[in-house]
Amino acid sequence: MAAIGAKQPKKGILERLNAGETVIGDGGFVFALEKRGYVKAGPWTPEATVEHPEAVRQLHREFLRAGSNVMQTFTFYASDDKLENRGNYVAEKFSGQAVNEAACDIAREVADEGDALVAGGVSQTPSYLSCKSEAYVKEIFKKQLVVFEKKKVDFLIAEYFEHIEEATWAVEVLKGSGKPVAATMCIGPEGDLNGIPAGKCAVQLVKAGASIVGVNCHFDPVTALNTVKLMKEGLAAANVKAHLMIQPIAYNTPDCGKQGFIDLPEFPFALEPRIITRWDVQKYAREAYKLGIRYIGGCCGFEPYHIRAIAEELAPERGFLPKASEKHGTWGSGLDMHTKPWVRARARKEYWEKLLPASGRPYCPSMSKPDAWGVTKGATELMQQKESTSEQQLHELFEKQKF
Amino acid sequence: MAAIGAKQPKKGILERLNAGETVIGDGGFVFALEKRGYVKAGPWTPEATVEHPEAVRQLHREFLRAGSNVMQTFTFYASDDKLENRGNYVAEKFSGQAVNEAACDIAREVADEGDALVAGGVSQTPSYLSCKSEAYVKEIFKKQLVVFEKKKVDFLIAEYFEHIEEATWAVEVLKGSGKPVAATMCIGPEGDLNGIPAGKCAVQLVKAGASIVGVNCHFDPVTALNTVKLMKEGLAAANVKAHLMIQPIAYNTPDCGKQGFIDLPEFPFALEPRIITRWDVQKYAREAYKLGIRYIGGCCGFEPYHIRAIAEELAPERGFLPKASEKHGTWGSGLDMHTKPWVRARARKEYWEKLLPASGRPYCPSMSKPDAWGVTKGATELMQQKESTSEQQLHELFEKQKF
Amino acid sequence: MAAIGAKQPKKGILERLNAGETVIGDGGFVFALEKRGYVKAGPWTPEATVEHPEAVRQLHREFLRAGSNVMQTFTFYASDDKLENRGNYVAEKFSGQAVNEAACDIAREVADEGDALVAGGVSQTPSYLSCKSEAYVKEIFKKQLVVFEKKKVDFLIAEYFEHIEEATWAVEVLKGSGKPVAATMCIGPEGDLNGIPAGKCAVQLVKAGASIVGVNCHFDPVTALNTVKLMKEGLAAANVKAHLMIQPIAYNTPDCGKQGFIDLPEFPFALEPRIITRWDVQKYAREAYKLGIRYIGGCCGFEPYHIRAIAEELAPERGFLPKASEKHGTWGSGLDMHTKPWVRARARKEYWEKLLPASGRPYCPSMSKPDAWGVTKGATELMQQKESTSEQQLHELFEKQKF
Amino acid sequence: MAAIGAKQPKKGILERLNAGETVIGDGGFVFALEKRGYVKAGPWTPEATVEHPEAVRQLHREFLRAGSNVMQTFTFYASDDKLENRGNYVAEKFSGQAVNEAACDIAREVADEGDALVAGGVSQTPSYLSCKSEAYVKEIFKKQLVVFEKKKVDFLIAEYFEHIEEATWAVEVLKGSGKPVAATMCIGPEGDLNGIPAGKCAVQLVKAGASIVGVNCHFDPVTALNTVKLMKEGLAAANVKAHLMIQPIAYNTPDCGKQGFIDLPEFPFALEPRIITRWDVQKYAREAYKLGIRYIGGCCGFEPYHIRAIAEELAPERGFLPKASEKHGTWGSGLDMHTKPWVRARARKEYWEKLLPASGRPYCPSMSKPDAWGVTKGATELMQQKESTSEQQLHELFEKQKF
Repeated sequence: MAAIGAKQPKKGILERLNAGETVIGDGGFVFALEKRGYVKAGPWTPEATVEHPEAVRQLHREFLRAGSNVMQTFTFYASDDKLENRGNYVAEKFSGQAVNEAACDIAREVADEGDALVAGGVSQTPSYLSCKSEAYVKEIFKKQLVVFEKKKVDFLIAEYFEHIEEATWAVEVLKGSGKPVAATMCIGPEGDLNGIPAGKCAVQLVKAGASIVGVNCHFDPVTALNTVKLMKEGLAAANVKAHLMIQPIAYNTPDCGKQGFIDLPEFPFALEPRIITRWDVQKYAREAYKLGIRYIGGCCGFEPYHIRAIAEELAPERGFLPKASEKHGTWGSGLDMHTKPWVRARARKEYWEKLLPASGRPYCPSMSKPDAWGVTKGATELMQQKESTSEQQLHELFEKQKF
Repeated sequence: MAAIGAKQPKKGILERLNAGETVIGDGGFVFALEKRGYVKAGPWTPEATVEHPEAVRQLHREFLRAGSNVMQTFTFYASDDKLENRGNYVAEKFSGQAVNEAACDIAREVADEGDALVAGGVSQTPSYLSCKSEAYVKEIFKKQLVVFEKKKVDFLIAEYFEHIEEATWAVEVLKGSGKPVAATMCIGPEGDLNGIPAGKCAVQLVKAGASIVGVNCHFDPVTALNTVKLMKEGLAAANVKAHLMIQPIAYNTPDCGKQGFIDLPEFPFALEPRIITRWDVQKYAREAYKLGIRYIGGCCGFEPYHIRAIAEELAPERGFLPKASEKHGTWGSGLDMHTKPWVRARARKEYWEKLLPASGRPYCPSMSKPDAWGVTKGATELMQQKESTSEQQLHELFEKQKF
Repeated sequence: MAAIGAKQPKKGILERLNAGETVIGDGGFVFALEKRGYVKAGPWTPEATVEHPEAVRQLHREFLRAGSNVMQTFTFYASDDKLENRGNYVAEKFSGQAVNEAACDIAREVADEGDALVAGGVSQTPSYLSCKSEAYVKEIFKKQLVVFEKKKVDFLIAEYFEHIEEATWAVEVLKGSGKPVAATMCIGPEGDLNGIPAGKCAVQLVKAGASIVGVNCHFDPVTALNTVKLMKEGLAAANVKAHLMIQPIAYNTPDCGKQGFIDLPEFPFALEPRIITRWDVQKYAREAYKLGIRYIGGCCGFEPYHIRAIAEELAPERGFLPKASEKHGTWGSGLDMHTKPWVRARARKEYWEKLLPASGRPYCPSMSKPDAWGVTKGATELMQQKESTSEQQLHELFEKQKF
Repeated sequence: MAAIGAKQPKKGILERLNAGETVIGDGGFVFALEKRGYVKAGPWTPEATVEHPEAVRQLHREFLRAGSNVMQTFTFYASDDKLENRGNYVAEKFSGQAVNEAACDIAREVADEGDALVAGGVSQTPSYLSCKSEAYVKEIFKKQLVVFEKKKVDFLIAEYFEHIEEATWAVEVLKGSGKPVAATMCIGPEGDLNGIPAGKCAVQLVKAGASIVGVNCHFDPVTALNTVKLMKEGLAAANVKAHLMIQPIAYNTPDCGKQGFIDLPEFPFALEPRIITRWDVQKYAREAYKLGIRYIGGCCGFEPYHIRAIAEELAPERGFLPKASEKHGTWGSGLDMHTKPWVRARARKEYWEKLLPASGRPYCPSMSKPDAWGVTKGATELMQQKESTSEQQLHELFEKQKF
């Protein structure tokens, strides 16, 4: 199979999906760029688009090479209320508009190097958690949308919503642009944080204007597939049609509860033992495909080689391999060039499919008990503030923490 | 502490070490670039310096930001005999000279953006494993050295040697340049593959001309520290002076044998659960410092954030933080800006120091039995060949593999 | 607290429960006697009552010393159709009547040494699995009941039923005696093997004549508590009153499916790593008590020290300790007599409560995938036969097994 | 193979070993009887011989049925200085003489029921740890020996010694009787607690008069085999002849240090997940046999079914199965009588040999860090006292404990 050329005319997201094509999403920008030194864990804001565009551009390129058909603008948490939250200094240096515009420019530049579309993205806001009004929250989304329209993104994504109410508001705003809207929630099989079932969430998103619905972030591929399955069943039961989308995290989380991996004690600085392998990803891509999902990507933890694994798994159906597969033998076959014979003996699918990888950590458990503070929108501790968390506030939290 | 400026005049590697400074090495290029899509696992050759210089440059920059004082030229396995080994197509497209020169240019460009030196590196050769003569093998090293001299690298590193004999040959060649030479072997506490003890290896390397000796690759930080300790003791017993250096892998390998992580069944495509955290790295950096090692870096698996962790741990001694720490709160303190209160409660050293991270893989073990074929230099299966491994050869290996 | 004397007049089972007393059951005879060499794993039949009464008597005594208030006759699988099943030779040597009578005699002898009642027990039959008629199956239970009546047991237990239909038949037969009947199913939260919910099963058992209902065997304490909770809720919803009973296995089984631990690959010869500690039992006893369960015992894997742990945990409520506590310091306090100081340092509740015990098996996983053949009553492979399983039959099963 | 008859004339221990027969030892009395409610963890003294002879007798019988050729008198820690140590009340009720005599009588009674010898046993004393003189310590052993001579035991065992000096004293005393002496130390490959190598210990024991030497207790079979291997090599190097003996614990302890399993945090009340299976025992018995060991038994944790596994593994060499194998199908073959087809599919050696048993404890690690207080004979905290450990003493220990 030949790698695909870059210069063919591009079809829109719905054209592709309606034609039955599989669209491959990209991976997790905040986590990848945190490890590369450009994003701060805690606020997780994307000012790197202005500060270090070369780093953002390079990551986009790697996902493009790996097979991504969508360059999602690096505008996660780029809303004005997040850029000046809890002592984050960003808003003093750069306007939200500047951060969003730079993100669009970089995404477009790289998208034009291959067969990718640009998607402008919005996500949940601290304002919603702090009980601001519908009008107030929608205004935040609108400010980002103005940039996306100016920069002519190809479609829009409302992602990472824990409450269907806020997600619906986002979709309603984005829909106003006339561009296709995809909407994903960061919920699991238990539903949104108010307990609204996944299937019902899916229906509501479509009714608000989304053409593509699904989940992203917070849960591992296995759990995310279960949630999308519930969404699919909910849509079918309501006789509502939409394309399905999935972008899970690249961490095994069989032990997490309703709120996903942020509740796990390892979040965000000790998740390494949970990272999924490329073979886990191939299995995930296959299951997603079987379930009828045609927009398949990743979120936090998905590195370029994880995305390539989606593209390689689905190469038989799609008819081509991504550019980055020039540097990867399918199912480990490149190991036949290894110097050592016992490594060459691993150059085959059966070997990697069956392997149960050891953790190398005999003093550690295989599962954790998630924190489960059970607080959400409206709880005092979730009310956001512009100034830094004070020593006193931190001390109270330390006391509260069951350690 | 302020991040250091880039434009002060640079001291040489021995000036720094002789003055008692701690020099921070860089991380693992082949593994990082494999995940980014630019290096092929199996041959592991560095032709990306010619094919995708922007990707190599970006990784150098990330290590520089993270605190690396050394930009090691990406010339690992860039010897002519490796570039045309077992069906690797590289030598047909690019000369070894071109790959090595491009590596030097990129390293110099980025080194000049900060306080880093350029080190030209050579490593073990397939020719040695195939029992070629001393003269033959030395000629291979000389060809790389010619480039390093032309490109005026600041010092030289002979690394990743399993046999002290070949390492000595490499040091002897490099020493001819008059530049300082560092030499590291990829051995563990059991010594080189012929059973020559680590302490004796260290003495021999110094006698051959190395000013800095230690280990790199193949073993986790805990094991690597044990090996360097043996080297230190060997040097002391022989009354031989040298600086110590350490660049371990970023994978926990309590279960590996004499030959290191390539013997583990998970190598190289299922090592994820073994990846060490930034907190593991801080502990490692502290132990290395206590042991008197002053050239501290990483090898396969070390990503920029791992290198930053070395720089952060040793910031009290060194007096400054790296640039990338602008995007990282020491010991997780940046989490005080997180939206969720239970994550803010993790913004402290005690929390991360004590945490025993779960694997999220309850169906997998915590240790593996390494392959231990017990073959090394001279074994038929280690004789290298220009052409691809044949189907018949592969089949014989599959049969041999205890699975 | 003083250990209770043996010679006070005995109250019946319902008197005790109606008075709010906690009744402590006994542990698992077939598993304990298998390890002692008197029961054969596979058929699991109790002919030891005739062959080695001293061994059965000793185990009864140990449970009595440990605090059991019930000596359950060792008549598990003592129905005639099980004693001559699949090549089991028992029925040729001893009649079912002889086995059952000996069991009653031994139980009575030991019960009279302390404050314990004798309970005659029946359990599921191969005949039911082979689709024999209600009349046929009931006749089997009646034959055992005749013995129990002759031997004047204090009450009756119908236990270890996977299908509510068969359990109901058993209760109906036992109820004919006029003695109190307890009934427990070996089901989990998913309900009986036909999917009938636990709550509904409980109601049906009471309606058939049981005064005490609950679960025994097949699942660990945590899971069993969940099932009894569902039963309690089912009874409450139906406004039906009964006492609750629980006798789980002493093996951790977080990974088992609908059919319980017999589906786990480790059943029955590699369950050791799953054995629960005395501290796990204390936690279980406390939770059971909190849930309102007042007949608390154990099944397979429960050794005398596990039963003692129930009695020790509930000593504050019950007002006395069992005799065997003369040889056990509560919460490890007896370690203050240990020779080694670091072991004396473990003589306290906090230490044992917090401890996360290691498996000592780093090459093994922490969970298994259960076999899930999904066959039950009526499936060809479940049809019982008098003659041994043939080589051909075995071979077919080996092939079918996913290994 | 037929089970052996009981009434043939008995050969002595050396006759058997000299003839090349394999002698099977018994299992662990203190641990088994602790679980049955007759021995107190902490003091671990054997007054049950007087208090509950029926329980001790039954355990002897089970080991006999399982294949033991030696009934070791239950006189572990039955020295007078241990019976009145740290608040243990035993010496006030029963004399050491009475406890030892009862132990001999019970052992003889059961030995006469089959082909077993009676061995009188002594073990390490608190007096030695408290630095009492050689004469003082030897007097303690002599008092037990007087009973053994009076009761005409067949041979003697000095076992469970951490210091070669004390072991030698014991052997010297026992040797005075003229009876054959076996001697085992509870040491690992690192040697005795003063660092004296295992090989040297073995030689010294033989020179002191032992005909049979080896190890017992403290370490798992794998580690114990390594230690006996070192002893064998030590004997060969010194050109000293002796029979080899091994009686390890039935707990996996890959993580323990020099002092064995008492240093593990799980000792003694949370060792359950470490219990070895019958299949682990068969592997151990085979390895022991291959190493040339001909006295093969068990210590703490070895239950009757573990001893049976030794007898079954070595049945081909010995020519017969033990009585208890009437209730056990070799390699799980009895499962062909199981009701459920997927359990019948497990009726074969290959299945059980390959199985990696799960712990069922995903929240627990697979290895622990042992306490390593590094104190031994002569340390203040090891000085024994007649009165109970005081609250103040306990508090100091709790503080010292790294938890």
